Formats: sequence, structure tokens, C-alpha cells
Amino acid sequence: MTNTVGLAEGLAADLAQRIDQRLLLPGARLPSVREAARLHGLSPYTVVAAYDRLQAQGLVEARRQRGFYVRDAKPAPRPAPTGTARAASGPAPFDAMTLIRNLLRSEHQDSPAHGTLPQSWLDAAPLRQALRAALAPGQEGLLLRYADPAGDPELRQVLAQRLAEIGIASDAEQILTTVGATQALDLIAHELTQPGDAVLVDEPGWPIEYARLVLAGLRLLPVRRGAQGPDLEQMAQLIREHRPRLYVTVSVLHNPTGHCLNLAQAYEVLRLCEGGEVLIVEDDTYAAFAPAHSPRLAALDGLRRTLYVSGFAKVLGAGLRVGYVTGRPDLIARLGERKLVHELCTSALLERALAGVLARGALRRQVERVQQRLEAARARCARLAGQHGFAFAAPPQGLFGWLDTGVDSERLTQRMLLEGFACAPELLFSPSRRSGPHIRVNFACSQDAKFWAALARTRASLA
Amino acid sequence: MTNTVGLAEGLAADLAQRIDQRLLLPGARLPSVREAARLHGLSPYTVVAAYDRLQAQGLVEARRQRGFYVRDAKPAPRPAPTGTARAASGPAPFDAMTLIRNLLRSEHQDSPAHGTLPQSWLDAAPLRQALRAALAPGQEGLLLRYADPAGDPELRQVLAQRLAEIGIASDAEQILTTVGATQALDLIAHELTQPGDAVLVDEPGWPIEYARLVLAGLRLLPVRRGAQGPDLEQMAQLIREHRPRLYVTVSVLHNPTGHCLNLAQAYEVLRLCEGGEVLIVEDDTYAAFAPAHSPRLAALDGLRRTLYVSGFAKVLGAGLRVGYVTGRPDLIARLGERKLVHELCTSALLERALAGVLARGALRRQVERVQQRLEAARARCARLAGQHGFAFAAPPQGLFGWLDTGVDSERLTQRMLLEGFACAPELLFSPSRRSGPHIRVNFACSQDAKFWAALARTRASLA
Repeated sequence: MTNTVGLAEGLAADLAQRIDQRLLLPGARLPSVREAARLHGLSPYTVVAAYDRLQAQGLVEARRQRGFYVRDAKPAPRPAPTGTARAASGPAPFDAMTLIRNLLRSEHQDSPAHGTLPQSWLDAAPLRQALRAALAPGQEGLLLRYADPAGDPELRQVLAQRLAEIGIASDAEQILTTVGATQALDLIAHELTQPGDAVLVDEPGWPIEYARLVLAGLRLLPVRRGAQGPDLEQMAQLIREHRPRLYVTVSVLHNPTGHCLNLAQAYEVLRLCEGGEVLIVEDDTYAAFAPAHSPRLAALDGLRRTLYVSGFAKVLGAGLRVGYVTGRPDLIARLGERKLVHELCTSALLERALAGVLARGALRRQVERVQQRLEAARARCARLAGQHGFAFAAPPQGLFGWLDTGVDSERLTQRMLLEGFACAPELLFSPSRRSGPHIRVNFACSQDAKFWAALARTRASLA
Repeated sequence: MTNTVGLAEGLAADLAQRIDQRLLLPGARLPSVREAARLHGLSPYTVVAAYDRLQAQGLVEARRQRGFYVRDAKPAPRPAPTGTARAASGPAPFDAMTLIRNLLRSEHQDSPAHGTLPQSWLDAAPLRQALRAALAPGQEGLLLRYADPAGDPELRQVLAQRLAEIGIASDAEQILTTVGATQALDLIAHELTQPGDAVLVDEPGWPIEYARLVLAGLRLLPVRRGAQGPDLEQMAQLIREHRPRLYVTVSVLHNPTGHCLNLAQAYEVLRLCEGGEVLIVEDDTYAAFAPAHSPRLAALDGLRRTLYVSGFAKVLGAGLRVGYVTGRPDLIARLGERKLVHELCTSALLERALAGVLARGALRRQVERVQQRLEAARARCARLAGQHGFAFAAPPQGLFGWLDTGVDSERLTQRMLLEGFACAPELLFSPSRRSGPHIRVNFACSQDAKFWAALARTRASLA
């Protein structure tokens, strides 16, 4: 009996933590007593004791004949939303943010839901070496003085060369460095829109971007993005009816579908946006993994109405926090003013080190290494998926696959947590908070055959 | 004659650059030909040739009988201000920003107008050593993984101890790291106000803060801040009439007056803000130079309605870009969500290095060194000022003195540029763009007796 109490306490504590971290959301149904007993190798008595304990804590409630459900959390004391947020339509961004913060916690970083490569795949040596070089005597100014508000000139020079390689003609003066690509997107949202403006976004897409746009008081206009690309007819109609100000998109290796715009689609997107006077924000976060010769919107339109945003988090290390944006000089000047107000300037040390990594060809070598390994990982995932009867929405490329599970992916995700695997369900990527059958699979973090077996088992239990 | 042409070209190029950098603002009158000839040791013919050249370039215009004036620059193509900015009253922030950007340029960094210590006073060694330690094997995660969105836990722990030393009781969990103190102020402006809200600010005060608040759509309510402290009567009236949401203030070593709140004033400010439900944002940017036992509002009210913001730019190096904010847990949680949306996370490497500097006592040693030297610099400035018949508004302490020049400081500043010295005139610190007799003097950067002589000479020419 003592043993049962200890085990029940353990299970209750484990579930309470998941509820607290909002990995189990309000309204989620806990597994049936029988099912939980099987999953955890416990007796049904132990599970009932654990569920009773959670109920006593007010974390779950029993619904007659239907089982145990996570209760609505007591809302944290929080004043009414701000005017800008209130002005916006679209979902409240906070659940997605809590989930994302949980994903950022290191314990989940190497799960199939993870957004970057596992740490073990990356090599800190190039960055470390470049940082040591930037710390050498004679360069104290990098630490002691305010940086050029536009960013380290050496880095901007190297970035301009790099951009030329993918067909984007940009002067160093047209480049503004930022705290990761994230800050570039934030400056754009604040400087180039007014509250109440409409903004086209990909659906599915990246929830932090939705949250940012909603917080800036903008109305989201989702454009369906499937394995065949963006729904151009829908986009044309939305432009006609809502006159959006921006289209924020990941054109190459779209997150989460893995789709890349082809040249014809890119041309159509540009044509529609030009007609509707829509500025395009091209987020090329996954540039390092891009198939050779992937067309960029920014290259095609010569940065006339495209702002191009990128960074190095995915291939050099997520801790670097250096990104950049390039575009028309007048727009970059405005974003530069905005950066000055928001941050004054960014770290010249980190930027100079990145310039060193790029100039010495160390990035290229790292990319080649990672690409090879990722190719093998994709092949293994495709094989494992096939063996269990799963299919990817698009042929595997880049870091993510958009896997059709055939069942509701939200319920699947809840169950998979009990199996010890974090998944990234379709709901997370939906601006309209729609569930669906897909989960985003990080190829590098889904090499464990047990994950695929658990996925198949869970699908069967939900079918 | 060739020589005259060369000299005229040189003078014209020099003035053109100043106009371009907006160190000479539209409407400013150039010195008379005779005066300029004397200042530069040139013949009047050369000066006339230079002025003609500027006129031909469209940069200045001759006004009959009155001399040469800088022309209104062609406005850059810039769409109508955004809705938020339009909603705001107060000055357009962009001239101040251009001036500040110029001040940030390294060529001006050691002028009397400068906002930090000269680079030669600072020692990069402690930071460099701590960064090297953070780059040692076993800590690759600092570079390769996303950081804790709230900031490096080790740093937050050390900061909590540091805060305790100045009487501010804060848990590490109540601390959020930011990209310099600047970003903390930005997150607050975005998260804790709504466009149209009124905000109390010190007048004079820091123009980047004005610009930030105006860009966030807020109405500035200036509270006079003199050598005797804030005008409490005016503050009470503004609170009654406008119900402001925030009071953003530098309580210790106020920029630019050098005034420190005493305990009685701090108590009155808290009482007024509590009665009016005003949140206080205490910007303690100059903490390193604070006289011992300076009372902080945050200490006095136990962080109930005060958010405390600080950083290390002034004493460790402006290039570090690590600041922080502490306050009530519910407010810090909201600012944390906002940081996640704006930046995702900050650099764990820089933050861990700062933790090392603080933990090893290296900051304390640096502060002691700098304080001693600054004391000598202040004494020398006070002596030089006295010799030339200038007086500081408050007894010299900290980094800045607020010097009464007895003449219009805007015109004085224009003339001083021609003498080769950049000054920071009262207008720069005025939310209502009022000129006045004061300039802000950086004690460390005003050690040159020639500066004081030029100042006296220029005053005489304007009297």
C-alpha cells in the first residue's frame, strides 16, 4: 500500500507538472484509468489514487461517465488586454507562447517537436574560435563602445557577399543587424504597419509570428499553404477584399510543411503583391538547409517590395542571437531608427565573431557536414514512417516534415506525452486554432524507432 | 588662389558633413563671414567661396542682410506617421534620434557631449576574461542552445544579490534580462501601456526615452526636474488631470541634471504615484556612479509599484548590451512574454560572462577605480568652470553636470561645433523642444582647458 501511495504521488506529480507547463491544456481528457495503468505499468488502483489527488488539488475534474479532464486554470491576475491587442482579431497568442516556452526548455530540446538541430549535431568550435579572435588585444572597442546602430560594418560586408551568392543584390548599407531573425520581424511589425492593418500569413505557420502580429494590433489573414504551395486564388481574394499591408512568409523550407516556392509560384506571389501594394517579408530562417538554387522572392524582385530576413540559429547555434534584414534603403533606414529606439544597438562582439565564421568559410563547412547527416536522417524517417503507414505531406527536405497521422493530432499529442514524446501538433501552427491530422516532425530528432512505434500505437488507440 | 580654392573646398566639405549629420540643423545660421574667418584662420574670401559652394549645393541659403542659413533638408520619402505615432502628442522624435546617432558615432564619442566614459578609462580585461571562461569546453550550450527566455539563471542569481545590497529585495525569478537597459524600457512601454495613455517624464530628460514613448503612441507629461528635484506640485496636478499610467524617471544621478532624489522626495513621489495608481519605472542606468546610500524608489516601496531597470554600459562597456528589469512577479511575467515575442531570447554567453564579472568582484574593483578618477575629473571641471564664470545647476556628482551657460545653449552649441567641440544643449533633453541656457557636460570628457576657454569665448560672442 505504501508502494501504491508513492507511485500514485509520482504519477500525480508528473501530470501536475505537465498541466502546470500547459503541455496538458485545459479541457484535455486524461487517459482512461485502464489505459493509464497499461501505459505506466501501474495497477488501476494506483492510477485512481493519482487522479483523486489531482482532483483534490483542483487540477482535474471528473465528468460523469466520461472520465477526467484538465480544469480551466485560474486565470492569472492580468489586466484587460491592451488597446492594440483588443483592436486585433485572431487568436489570443498566449497559449501558443506557453507551449513554445516549454519547447525552449532544454528538457524538450531534442524531442521530435524541437525546432532546431540537436546540440550534439552542432560544433561550437568555429564560433568559439571566432569569438576568441574578436577578444584579442586591439579590439577592446567591440566591448567598450556602443556599436554602429546599423550593425558591425565587417559583418554587413560579409553578409552582402553571401546574399549575392543567392542572387540578392544588396549593399552593406542596406543591411541592418538584429537580435536574431526574430527581432528583425518584430521591428518590421512595429515600424511598417499601423494597428488595425491586415497582414497575410501562411497557414499553417510559425505561432510566434502570429503572436507578434496580433500583439502589434494587426489582423491576420491566413493563406492556406500546402504541399503544393500557397493558395494563390485565396491570396488574390484576400488582397482584393482586405488590402493587407504585408505578406509574412517562409518561402524556402516553409515551417512546418517543408514546402519550397518554385519559380512560377514565386512569380505569381510577387505579381499579386505588386498589384495589391503588399510588402513581402521573406523569412529565410532555414537558409542553411535550402536545396541548391531555391528561388528567393527577394532575388526575383530585386528587393523592390521584399524585405529579406535571415539568421544563423539553425546551423551555427541558437544561442548566437544575430540575425539581419535587408531591403529597400528607405525601409531599412526606418527599421534602423526603430532599432535605435528599441535596443540602441546590438553586440558588436557577437557580430564581429559571426563575420569571422563567415569569412573563413567555417559556415560553409558546417553546412555541408549538417546537410549530409540530415539527408541520412530524412531517409531513415521516411523509411520508419513508411513502415508504420505514415505519409509526409511533401517529399522530405530540410529540417521538418509535415506528417499526416490520420487522426486528430491534438489528442495524439496528449497521448504521446504519456509515452514520453513531445510532438508539435497542427493546432500549434494554426492562426485559427484549428486542429487537424498533421504533426511537425524534426527529422534530426526523430531517429528513435521507438518514437515511430509509439506514434503508430497511439494512432491505433485513437482510430 | 589654388590654395584658397583648396581651403574653401575643405571648409565647405566640413560644413556639408555637419549639415548632413544634422549637427547643424535646418534654420541654423552659419557664423558671419568675418567670424568664420577668425575661427578658422582663413581669409574672408575663402569663407565666402566656401559659403557660395554650399549655396550652390542647395545646403544653405543666403537671407538678405542676415547671413547664411542651413536650408530645410528635403524630407526623406517617408509615409505618413503610423496610427500610434499620430495618436500621440509631443515632439516628433526623429531629430533627436539623428543627433543621438551622431553622438554614437565613434568620432564624437569622447566629446563633452558624450554619454559614457571615454574608452581609455575603461578596462576590457574583466569582461574579456569572463568571456573566455564562458567559452571554455563544457559550456557549448551557451552558444548552441536557445537561452532561458527570462535570461541566464546564474546572472539573475548574482543580480538578486546585488540588488539586495542596495536594499531591493528581489528573487532571481523576478528578474528579466534584456538587451541593455534600453530594451527593458522598450518592453515596458509596449506591454504596460495602451496607445493614447499619458506618461509622466522628467523634463529635462533622456530624448531616446521620449522618442520611444511617443512611438508607442503615448502622451508625454513633462514634470520639471531641477537641482531641487522634481516639481511635486506639478506632478500632483498632472496626475489629477491626466491619470497617467507610468512615471518614467532616473531617480539617482538624473540625466542630465545630476540630481539625486533624497529620501523625503522619494517618499512624496511614491505617495503621489500610489494615490494616482501610477506605475513607476525607475531607470538606474548610472547606478555604478551613485553616491553611497542613494535611496531607490524600488527599495522604498518594496517593488510594489516600481519597476527597476539597470545595466552595466556605463562602467563595464557600452558594447556589452546586457541590462535587466525587476518588479512585481505578475508584471515581470508579462514583460517576459513580451520579450519572447520581440526577441525570443538574449545571448546566454554575454549574460554568463557578466555573471562571472559580478561574482568575482571585478565590477566592484572597476567601479572603485572609475569613481576615484571621476572625482578628480569633477573637481577639475568645477575649477575650470569657476575660472570662466560658469556654474553647475547642482553640486557636481556622477558623470554629468548641468551647466548654466547664461546664453541660448542651442546657438552656443552651433558655434562650439565650429570650434571643434560637440556639446549637448538643453533642447536635446526637452520633450517640448525648448531651448535654454544649459548644456550637459560629461565630466570625464571635459578635461581639456581649451574646451572651457572656447566655451567662455563663445558665450562672450553671443552675450
